Amino acid sequence: MAADGNGAAAAGGDTRAVFAQIYKTLKEELLTDPAFEFTEESHQWIDRMVDYTVLGGKCNRGLSVVDSYKLLKGADTLSEEEMFLACTLGWCIEWLQAFFLVLDDIMDESHTRRGQPCWFRVPQVGFIAVNDGIILRNHISRILRRHFKGKPYYADLLDLFNEVEFKTASGQLLDLITTHEGEKDLTKYNITVHGRIVQYKTAYYSFYLPVACALLLSGENLDKYGDVENILVEMGTYFQVQDDYLDCYGDPEFIGKIGTDIEDYKCSWLVVQALERADESQKRILFENYGKKDPACVAKVKNLYKELNLEAVFQEYESESYKKLIADIEAQPSIAVQNVLKSFLHKIYKRQK
Amino acid sequence: MAADGNGAAAAGGDTRAVFAQIYKTLKEELLTDPAFEFTEESHQWIDRMVDYTVLGGKCNRGLSVVDSYKLLKGADTLSEEEMFLACTLGWCIEWLQAFFLVLDDIMDESHTRRGQPCWFRVPQVGFIAVNDGIILRNHISRILRRHFKGKPYYADLLDLFNEVEFKTASGQLLDLITTHEGEKDLTKYNITVHGRIVQYKTAYYSFYLPVACALLLSGENLDKYGDVENILVEMGTYFQVQDDYLDCYGDPEFIGKIGTDIEDYKCSWLVVQALERADESQKRILFENYGKKDPACVAKVKNLYKELNLEAVFQEYESESYKKLIADIEAQPSIAVQNVLKSFLHKIYKRQK
Repeated sequence: MAADGNGAAAAGGDTRAVFAQIYKTLKEELLTDPAFEFTEESHQWIDRMVDYTVLGGKCNRGLSVVDSYKLLKGADTLSEEEMFLACTLGWCIEWLQAFFLVLDDIMDESHTRRGQPCWFRVPQVGFIAVNDGIILRNHISRILRRHFKGKPYYADLLDLFNEVEFKTASGQLLDLITTHEGEKDLTKYNITVHGRIVQYKTAYYSFYLPVACALLLSGENLDKYGDVENILVEMGTYFQVQDDYLDCYGDPEFIGKIGTDIEDYKCSWLVVQALERADESQKRILFENYGKKDPACVAKVKNLYKELNLEAVFQEYESESYKKLIADIEAQPSIAVQNVLKSFLHKIYKRQK
Repeated sequence: MAADGNGAAAAGGDTRAVFAQIYKTLKEELLTDPAFEFTEESHQWIDRMVDYTVLGGKCNRGLSVVDSYKLLKGADTLSEEEMFLACTLGWCIEWLQAFFLVLDDIMDESHTRRGQPCWFRVPQVGFIAVNDGIILRNHISRILRRHFKGKPYYADLLDLFNEVEFKTASGQLLDLITTHEGEKDLTKYNITVHGRIVQYKTAYYSFYLPVACALLLSGENLDKYGDVENILVEMGTYFQVQDDYLDCYGDPEFIGKIGTDIEDYKCSWLVVQALERADESQKRILFENYGKKDPACVAKVKNLYKELNLEAVFQEYESESYKKLIADIEAQPSIAVQNVLKSFLHKIYKRQK
């Protein structure tokens, strides 16, 4: 998840209400799409599946399209039409996220998501969830076609969602073959591997995509925004490092879940830092205990993290990242673009959840 | 599969060789796509996965783009550029097919496909195949972007693939919830249900899509070809009815597989016809024996099909469909379009495999 904390304040209670209302419109349109003759059963199925899989998140990614668009326009309010289009693109990102999560949960054999059973675990669903994932992705194309066909940036919008989806699926492949394939092998983990997975699997769709949508809505040509893309991907990487850190050091009460990266043999930023700093005997502890369910093994890993002072390593990373990001942002020629990027950064800097 | 039998003759040995060569070009481009930094492992993975899942079919759908385009142009030969673009769109359909098959095999828990284990059954693959399916779909967008961006029909091409994918996934949903959901209930099966599943799940992508690609390549506006779409969807339905018929009555030696529609409780055209014609005691036989693995049950169902003379019912359907299709085709104003449609029809009429 992106852009947390101040999200609600920045978006405003009103934006959230309008955003929620537009979901209903979009879903109703999908359920009466003339490209398919729904039967009563399939109508009910899609209605329920979309509510179950698209709703229930914080909508930070979706709402940030609206925020970014306002900042780019330098306007506090948008016309009804502008608001509708910005919210619609925001929902497309939420739909994309739902598509990824439904399929990731099947691949990871997960049990719960957003406080309820994963969609494929719901009775009568099972592997039909694979097809439901495809349908969720198709909904984005249907929504874009209905509301954006004829706009000068329509093809660019399709290309954007396609390219971001491709990068995300490629990042997921890296993660799957690095983390799951064959035997567990910690020697494969290093900061380059970690950075590449995070960049492709998370940063593009969570950070770059909302801003790129807002830029297209504003009539901008994305080819001119390579620097902005790089900054947002870096911010997304920083966000995921925080996530890895909080998995181990965050307050479970506060972040709403108990971290299991160590048990799950994740290529976490923490284990990568530990591997870089460990001497031979410490490495042996990592190799023997990482990726085991046994709480005693987990405790040994956490103890080693403490010995290596990874909390301080993280704080150093956090403040260095912030400085670098601020410098890069302030080198941007457009103040409006600077505002968009700073708004994102301040939503995540030093977040506790 | 579509357009069998005379396919090789119509496409010509030469077209087949060029088509095969262009596959290598497209795969190489995907493996050096700058949108993703491949690692050695992920490069090898994708290379192997694409060969395993895209190749091995008869390529009738893909080759029919080239055939149709030639007929539309009224030219026996194409320029190198035209040939490349037609083959590329043909390969996009083959990639779409691979994407559907990889995921369908997971959902159906199938064992073999095209004479080898299903991709997800290959050691070390497993659920990574879900993500591979997504990547196959993304490859189409990458190929289209590289070779068609800037063409006047680029957005229409993206819309076409998106809409056909949506219809196919919706047809798959209908099939899944009709055939698999809850208890087996033959009362749900009738000709309307059968027709709707077949139309959406098979006909659009197998019959309409290749011709629609050829029309776009020829600079045509698809909105003007609603009749052609209807004819091709009807032809696709006829093709699937043949498939259902051959599953039971075809020569296993000749069609290359042993049909299991009765065991698998499929909503086959045959069971639908049987249900329409059966008296109460015959219906009881169907309800008691359809969808059971026991060869004695299968034999009882086949026996009932014989009693109801379904072979003759099929022959009547086949000749009526043919007459209707020819009449509809000959009502088309363009002779070139008539030729395309007749070429498709004659490839499948009275096929034995």
